[in-house]
Amino acid sequence: MADTIAAISTAPGEGGIGIVRVSGPGSMDIMRRVMKKCPTDIEPRHAYLGDAVSGSEDSAPEVIDKCLFIYMQAPASYTGEDMLEIQAHGSNVSLKSILGAVLDSKIAGIRMAEPGEFTKLAFLNGKMDLSQAEAVIDIIKAKSDLSLGIAEAQHEGRLSESVREIRESLLDILAEMAVDIDYPDEDYELDGSGEGSELVGKLRWVLSDVEELLDTAAIGRIAREGVRVVIAGKPNAGKSSLMNAILGEGRVIVTDVPGTTRDTVEESASLGGVPIVLVDTAGIRETGDKVEKIGVERTTRAIAAADMVILVLDGSRELDEEDSSVLGYIEHMNSNNILVVINKEDLGHSISEEAVREKLPGVRIIRTSLIGKGAQNASRRVSEEIGEIFELGKINPQETNIVTNERHIQMLKNAEMNLDEAIGMLQSGEPMEVAELSAHYAYDSLGKIIGEDVGDEVLNTVFSKFCLGK
Amino acid sequence: MADTIAAISTAPGEGGIGIVRVSGPGSMDIMRRVMKKCPTDIEPRHAYLGDAVSGSEDSAPEVIDKCLFIYMQAPASYTGEDMLEIQAHGSNVSLKSILGAVLDSKIAGIRMAEPGEFTKLAFLNGKMDLSQAEAVIDIIKAKSDLSLGIAEAQHEGRLSESVREIRESLLDILAEMAVDIDYPDEDYELDGSGEGSELVGKLRWVLSDVEELLDTAAIGRIAREGVRVVIAGKPNAGKSSLMNAILGEGRVIVTDVPGTTRDTVEESASLGGVPIVLVDTAGIRETGDKVEKIGVERTTRAIAAADMVILVLDGSRELDEEDSSVLGYIEHMNSNNILVVINKEDLGHSISEEAVREKLPGVRIIRTSLIGKGAQNASRRVSEEIGEIFELGKINPQETNIVTNERHIQMLKNAEMNLDEAIGMLQSGEPMEVAELSAHYAYDSLGKIIGEDVGDEVLNTVFSKFCLGK
Repeated sequence: MADTIAAISTAPGEGGIGIVRVSGPGSMDIMRRVMKKCPTDIEPRHAYLGDAVSGSEDSAPEVIDKCLFIYMQAPASYTGEDMLEIQAHGSNVSLKSILGAVLDSKIAGIRMAEPGEFTKLAFLNGKMDLSQAEAVIDIIKAKSDLSLGIAEAQHEGRLSESVREIRESLLDILAEMAVDIDYPDEDYELDGSGEGSELVGKLRWVLSDVEELLDTAAIGRIAREGVRVVIAGKPNAGKSSLMNAILGEGRVIVTDVPGTTRDTVEESASLGGVPIVLVDTAGIRETGDKVEKIGVERTTRAIAAADMVILVLDGSRELDEEDSSVLGYIEHMNSNNILVVINKEDLGHSISEEAVREKLPGVRIIRTSLIGKGAQNASRRVSEEIGEIFELGKINPQETNIVTNERHIQMLKNAEMNLDEAIGMLQSGEPMEVAELSAHYAYDSLGKIIGEDVGDEVLNTVFSKFCLGK
Repeated sequence: MADTIAAISTAPGEGGIGIVRVSGPGSMDIMRRVMKKCPTDIEPRHAYLGDAVSGSEDSAPEVIDKCLFIYMQAPASYTGEDMLEIQAHGSNVSLKSILGAVLDSKIAGIRMAEPGEFTKLAFLNGKMDLSQAEAVIDIIKAKSDLSLGIAEAQHEGRLSESVREIRESLLDILAEMAVDIDYPDEDYELDGSGEGSELVGKLRWVLSDVEELLDTAAIGRIAREGVRVVIAGKPNAGKSSLMNAILGEGRVIVTDVPGTTRDTVEESASLGGVPIVLVDTAGIRETGDKVEKIGVERTTRAIAAADMVILVLDGSRELDEEDSSVLGYIEHMNSNNILVVINKEDLGHSISEEAVREKLPGVRIIRTSLIGKGAQNASRRVSEEIGEIFELGKINPQETNIVTNERHIQMLKNAEMNLDEAIGMLQSGEPMEVAELSAHYAYDSLGKIIGEDVGDEVLNTVFSKFCLGK
């Protein structure tokens, strides 16, 4: 008989409600053991109020907490197995005691769940394919409405659907190739209108579908990690004012941005559903000072890694050498990814937009004063500009597929390479058998995205990223 | 119409499952708005699987997350009102979006819940009395099985029951006093067998019941905050080894101990269900050194605040001046609350138990070597001794009332004082009216424990300690 697994499924810490979750054939028996005065007939999906009690059959039961018990009958559950959900107060001690009572219940095969094991079961029992299962952890870790939306769409199966469609087309081509291998008399012609060139054309279509998915990975990266916006400018131009205004406007996300160094000030925020990472650079000055040199290096590095630079200028003074040196850092960039904010409008108009565009042709410019309402308006306009530049606001993840998962990207790249190979082989007249093999590899790579023929190693890697209880 | 309130009810952070909770007359309407393809007939307490969607009636709904929806019908719910529970993935963004969708649902009177407001409603709607409601936050914040057990018993109404019984007795007495006030002809005699002395006797019974409850407050404090155990001894006697052994044995609780200073190393652990706070003191040395003097002061303070001191001695050397000076700090203590650990048994037996008992008569002594298995055994014995000294293991909170709440203690003290007054007045022959008034105050004080005639101010204070969503 399969194991019955249990874990605390809510986030650790103090909360109003916490949940212990059980999955496996022993779920109903555990409810009978752990719930005091458990009803004889347990109606699936009904929330029963009762006391959770500890103590095996031998010892007197001790009340742990007042709980809601919900039993779900296989296959109509998250994992596809029988499940039990015990809702208690969100107390660490209470939840641990209830989990202890569940594990001590002497039900055959009861044990602690491994991280992600509930979702792994859902995958193994065919409740969702692997890319849908992988989206679960992306939902939990989503940092913005956009990344949540993309994860939800993947969880719903949008990506799987596209992958399946591509694989079906490829399967038809593989069948044609197989026919050609079995009946090699009808030779294919590549430069004519024969079967070979037809196959190449069909494979090119499949390849373009794969590449279309791969092209979304860049947006996927931004959606997952956020638009990296570097705020540059000479000291006292107003960089921090702008940063604070934008952070005040957006919903600030307090979690750390993983994998980033802390030598610049970074803050994450969600602006109109678009995740951004704001990077405040130290004031850039060209001096012989060693500390300043380090600052300059850091800024150069930050700008190189940026998706966008906002250059803040002091509009009350004419462009000076300091501004020029800052401009020097960004003039190589695509002007689409630069936004110039001419600040201190209330103090004077010493910088013309023409002067700026002379250095940065075609650049977008905002004139403002980063104080009070001016700061609010500026941050709103910056947010609009970011939305426009990256067109993230226009993305509807329920309509467009966005690839975000590194494993999926790798499998798509493998498929791309194999299809490329197959096409090349057909074109150079190599035997159909070898071309078919390459195309088959592509088919297999695409299958791995949705979890076909993936080994334990892949599954372990995928689900080890999950939290306990999911 | 009453408000409909909503909040995220699970602990913040990433988890497998998170819950948004709604209470109020709009609960069912919110389910119809927020759940996509909501069934026409909603069966109470049934867990429906469906998509939570955002967007008001005007705009197209956007799927936020796949959720379980459970509607509970008044009065069979936690708050006694209609309620809705939405179980989503434990994602901050998802839960906030769902809460946002609920608040944007345009249901009349919908608003964010205040901290503790669900439990406050449960109290106001008569689902539980005030002491039961107060126990909810104690359950959530419980740091050990014992404090959880006490909180659960209070939540079940054990304390309320005792208070109600005391009040009933007191009400009978008040009725007798009222009769005496209305028919003052039948004068009471205090030194005879008359009504007056009978009343005094009855009041004394009530007073002793109140004092019995108050007496449990000391254990209640220990159960809530933990037994404060100070580990003392000269440098290198083995204090840290013992501390680590005990912490390795017990379940270490990682949360900070509130209200304690950090000038000594403190760690919380739960030993056999008994919460303890281990305090490691700096090595005590009598020198002229200023830093050492500060250390000495801290140790003195730590010992003064301790429930128990464990003195660690190096048994391989004879008692020296350093040991004597440490002994000087604790010799005034009750020997019941001292445990002496003679360490380094493997290196020699230079300290006899007699020599120790000469300084600390009747003290408990453990001989051991705090290395390897010796450390494990020692920590187990220390844990047994602590259990024996404080007899916490014998407490069954489902049988014995333990008072833990500061407000309850204050009300009991008020009642004690008023009953004392009433008895004194009767004995000194003061008018029945004034004695009755004092007894009535006692009755009111006891009533405030279970929430009778408490004002908004008390309720606000009580529920402001709660977390959001409870």
